[in-house]
Amino acid sequence: MAEEQRSLRVAIPIFDHLTALDAVGPYEVLNAVPGVSVVFVSDKPGLILAGEAQQSHLGLRATASYKDVPHPDVIVVPGGPPTKIPLHHKPLLDWIRKAHETTLFTTSVCTGALILGSAGLLTGLECTTHWSSYKKLEEFGAKASAKRYIQQGKIITAAGVSSGIDMALYLAALLKDKVIAEGVQLLVEYDPQPPFDSGSLAKASPEVLALPFIRPLLD
Amino acid sequence: MAEEQRSLRVAIPIFDHLTALDAVGPYEVLNAVPGVSVVFVSDKPGLILAGEAQQSHLGLRATASYKDVPHPDVIVVPGGPPTKIPLHHKPLLDWIRKAHETTLFTTSVCTGALILGSAGLLTGLECTTHWSSYKKLEEFGAKASAKRYIQQGKIITAAGVSSGIDMALYLAALLKDKVIAEGVQLLVEYDPQPPFDSGSLAKASPEVLALPFIRPLLD
Repeated sequence: MAEEQRSLRVAIPIFDHLTALDAVGPYEVLNAVPGVSVVFVSDKPGLILAGEAQQSHLGLRATASYKDVPHPDVIVVPGGPPTKIPLHHKPLLDWIRKAHETTLFTTSVCTGALILGSAGLLTGLECTTHWSSYKKLEEFGAKASAKRYIQQGKIITAAGVSSGIDMALYLAALLKDKVIAEGVQLLVEYDPQPPFDSGSLAKASPEVLALPFIRPLLD
Repeated sequence: MAEEQRSLRVAIPIFDHLTALDAVGPYEVLNAVPGVSVVFVSDKPGLILAGEAQQSHLGLRATASYKDVPHPDVIVVPGGPPTKIPLHHKPLLDWIRKAHETTLFTTSVCTGALILGSAGLLTGLECTTHWSSYKKLEEFGAKASAKRYIQQGKIITAAGVSSGIDMALYLAALLKDKVIAEGVQLLVEYDPQPPFDSGSLAKASPEVLALPFIRPLLD
């Protein structure tokens, strides 16, 4: 709002098979912060298909290429199924490494941490990711921890999917101040009241852990 | 998953200026429920531009038109700024009214409740919406209430933006069962830990309510 302040640019790289909420949660929070703009970037501008299922995918649009946004103030890397996200896509990893040199904060949501890890940014750091990917995260030299989000210097990693909303509010306070971040929390009416309390491995019941769509992720 | 069960179809109507998280929160939750598929519908298939700001919008893709999906099992109507969402768009209102005759549940997130109200579905019902739109909701004959979500028969309305995640988990339990819904909560790791507690009007401080991007919404 205040025109004397430099606008802050948040870049969210997107790619086919991403988990949409990983990206859209932080987008909605950060885009509501006065003086912050959020851009979705990819190899080239165009439509990206979220999700695993071919028949029910959601398309998100990248409006810029990596080279269009070489120096974002903040990066938020979303995730998706570890076997399908671009863990070894050189243009993305090169962009992250180079942009990271000048970012204020370099962040991830969910298995986006594996991409930061693959870019070599997490070695020796305490980090988090989706609960199904702690082992994979440690293969990149990080120390995996089951927290909602973890800040290590200018790197912040968040847990699975919905955690990006919590992390983005924290980030909003770092970028501006606590009152503004609280205003954004009110704007998106983030007063969570989940009907159950099964949102983490520690809280899930044996019946939940035995579900056919959960059990294979525990291996 | 179980092929003997009929697949349930969730339709989310989208339109320019929608608040993306209103739609993507429920999408991510409901699309993870075995035997449920989610489709984004609009006047015609194609790109829809979310958000208010021309320079930082997010594109979401509708893959079907209203007439392609005349009888969804569930409707989730997202919202956006009340002056910009299609409150009086006849094709949308006609589709909602007709589809509602055969839905299992007809639901809204945020100011999507105003669209349900404009379609004439909320008369006399206790409903909720984004905190900034209680008065507008009552103009459609509903009784506005500051709850996270409210079920009245097969109509469920949720509060602002992020509340769609809570409502969708509740809906998942109605469509399947509590254990499956808890599994989905674990899958999206919805164990909210917001860094502040300013997510509702009742909780926001005077400083927050005086913010330039909040104050005008209180009028």
